[in-house]
Amino acid sequence: MSKFAMYAKFKAQPGQRDALARILLEAAEQCESEQGCELYIVNASDEDPDIIWVTELWSDAEAHAESLRNEDTVALIGRARPLIAGVEPIKLRPLGGKGFQ
Amino acid sequence: MSKFAMYAKFKAQPGQRDALARILLEAAEQCESEQGCELYIVNASDEDPDIIWVTELWSDAEAHAESLRNEDTVALIGRARPLIAGVEPIKLRPLGGKGFQ
Repeated sequence: MSKFAMYAKFKAQPGQRDALARILLEAAEQCESEQGCELYIVNASDEDPDIIWVTELWSDAEAHAESLRNEDTVALIGRARPLIAGVEPIKLRPLGGKGFQ
Repeated sequence: MSKFAMYAKFKAQPGQRDALARILLEAAEQCESEQGCELYIVNASDEDPDIIWVTELWSDAEAHAESLRNEDTVALIGRARPLIAGVEPIKLRPLGGKGFQ
């Protein structure tokens, strides 16, 4: 199965970007123990103070889908939801490069 | 100095995405020997057949700027230019996560 990559663009409610970033960094810590998760990097936009981008790389789309059913993830999503004004996923098919095995 | 991340969105001329991807994968190979380059992953968009996204992570913004002055990079940019309809960089400040040291 081919790997799955995604940029997840989060728009925070006004003034809530840092609080949202902290929850997404907790999600990244959970990913440390998930074998199927290869990258989960939380980034602040340089241009928009309400935007966070998460760079995700997974062993396959199923590993990503499964992580969303994990009860710890579901709990984090519940805590994050009130801080989020919108989410836009950009789904990608990784072809190769440095940092991609 | 803080690390520098970027998503570079390339729109290829119609029908030229695969040719452009091959040149970007050559650029990724050059990155293998650049210490300041931590990630350079070439991705095809799942949604738009003309779009490529490159996930970049650099030790700092200067390492990225320096790579653009490298003569091998300049030569690759020259070969890629006729295949490119547009480029849009999304500049990021990475905060942490899995795959980020």
